[in-house]
Amino acid sequence: MTNQHSSGYDRTPVSVIGLGPMGAALAAAFLDHGHPTTVWNRSPQKADDLVAKGAHRASTVIEAVSAGPMIIVCVKDYETMHEILGAAGDTLNGRVLVNLNSGTPSQARAAVGWATERGAGYLDGAIMVPPPLVGHPGSVFLYSGSPGVFDQHRQTLASVGDPRYLGSDPSLAVLYNAALLDMMYATMNGFLHATALVGSANVSAVEFAEHALGWFMPTVVDSVLAEQAPELDKGNYPGDLGTLEMNLNALEHITQASVEQGVHSDQPRLMKEIAERAITDGYGGKNYLAVFEIFKQATREPPT
Amino acid sequence: MTNQHSSGYDRTPVSVIGLGPMGAALAAAFLDHGHPTTVWNRSPQKADDLVAKGAHRASTVIEAVSAGPMIIVCVKDYETMHEILGAAGDTLNGRVLVNLNSGTPSQARAAVGWATERGAGYLDGAIMVPPPLVGHPGSVFLYSGSPGVFDQHRQTLASVGDPRYLGSDPSLAVLYNAALLDMMYATMNGFLHATALVGSANVSAVEFAEHALGWFMPTVVDSVLAEQAPELDKGNYPGDLGTLEMNLNALEHITQASVEQGVHSDQPRLMKEIAERAITDGYGGKNYLAVFEIFKQATREPPT
Repeated sequence: MTNQHSSGYDRTPVSVIGLGPMGAALAAAFLDHGHPTTVWNRSPQKADDLVAKGAHRASTVIEAVSAGPMIIVCVKDYETMHEILGAAGDTLNGRVLVNLNSGTPSQARAAVGWATERGAGYLDGAIMVPPPLVGHPGSVFLYSGSPGVFDQHRQTLASVGDPRYLGSDPSLAVLYNAALLDMMYATMNGFLHATALVGSANVSAVEFAEHALGWFMPTVVDSVLAEQAPELDKGNYPGDLGTLEMNLNALEHITQASVEQGVHSDQPRLMKEIAERAITDGYGGKNYLAVFEIFKQATREPPT
Repeated sequence: MTNQHSSGYDRTPVSVIGLGPMGAALAAAFLDHGHPTTVWNRSPQKADDLVAKGAHRASTVIEAVSAGPMIIVCVKDYETMHEILGAAGDTLNGRVLVNLNSGTPSQARAAVGWATERGAGYLDGAIMVPPPLVGHPGSVFLYSGSPGVFDQHRQTLASVGDPRYLGSDPSLAVLYNAALLDMMYATMNGFLHATALVGSANVSAVEFAEHALGWFMPTVVDSVLAEQAPELDKGNYPGDLGTLEMNLNALEHITQASVEQGVHSDQPRLMKEIAERAITDGYGGKNYLAVFEIFKQATREPPT
């Protein structure tokens, strides 16, 4: 079986190490797209279903690494990856390691050094969909690291989803992943806390969602953020249409309403404190987006 | 000048009390739509521009209240409203008070009692647009309180925007306003903090917004929330596709990445703590939306 780039049909052999729900979904997607797929997992029976679909079960890490040019790693964390692949010794030399664990930027930067020492190319990636969506052409995978390695293997990576390259800094995929999830959790928490607040007056989530998601978010919030992104880069926060002082007043009302209605109040209180900090720093007459200046600084009290 | 409901053209006289940027915008919109408009403000010169456009400047609160069937109040807070309209005595009897101050649910409930004692109908409202958008037909105004009063005056209220009625509980407009802004600030903070996080690796806001707002939010977040609202009402959070335990792992990475990159870490840390609280309460095997159960409860530590 050869790599048929010219025909747009890629059958590069792939090894998948780590067969949790995500690793298993990746291996299945490679099999579905016709890649000879070798799999390895610490508990070998996790490979049973994949072997039934045509995967080759490697009995050692060295066998898995030796099976082809590209090794996909999907284990718990970077530490586990280093531990497992430490056993592969020189076998990594000349191959490409694509690491899809989650972790922190410094761990990603350390991993590229680790791979380089062993003569392996390295890409760090982040999977932005749950396991059932792996293999769909619209499912986004973020990658960062060597641009040459990415270009060479883009077509193989496209078998599991839509590969997007963020840049040569290997920590970018992990950082984007953290930032996108950060935004996702904050947005979900905002909706859930707001739903709890109106729920205290017996408004249902469905009823609130109609106003909140059907009208308010798309017209009032999302469009403004997209429009204002260039101003963030300039640090330009004109207060003509409303000031942080006015927003603080609103955040005080929201916090007080949460307390009055007997719902959780930590989240609005923290937002109020962040706005207060921005005002203390001299942004009171600027618009709300000036809290960006606070977020760019480390929290002043040391984390506990 | 008569109220011409039948022709679809309403010229009900209106009085506007309080001429800050929002009150002035309301009075101007009523004038633009042909309503005889009487205005009053503690500092009378704030009415100069409106008088030039055809408004009548009342020299006392009693004169302003007496001028027509509907009094729009747009002052700093409920306390200021009670103080100013206290001077109107019996004049309020038989008229309708539409209060557009911001405040808390209990203040709205107290205000309806206050108005009822004086024989006035009462609507509480919230303006969901900044002053320059007042008077545009798509600008949303939320109202709650007497349904009869709303129906009777809907057409007059439509002169300043799109009037949406939420229910007879007078606190609903204030509560929805607080909840929508709560969600807005949380979403903006989520985007801004995430932008600061990738900014620590020199990614621009414009570049991040392309991924974050152009792809991630609409496809991954917003659609899921709308879809899941009925499950929130049922308290149904199946963990098949991912559990709160897994989300906690992600929130730990996000908090750690924020610390590592030298950006503000209070916001992800609070989200992590809320997820931990939900796990302590037994929701670890449920999906992330189960944090809704935490938000529905008062914060356990007393607010400082």
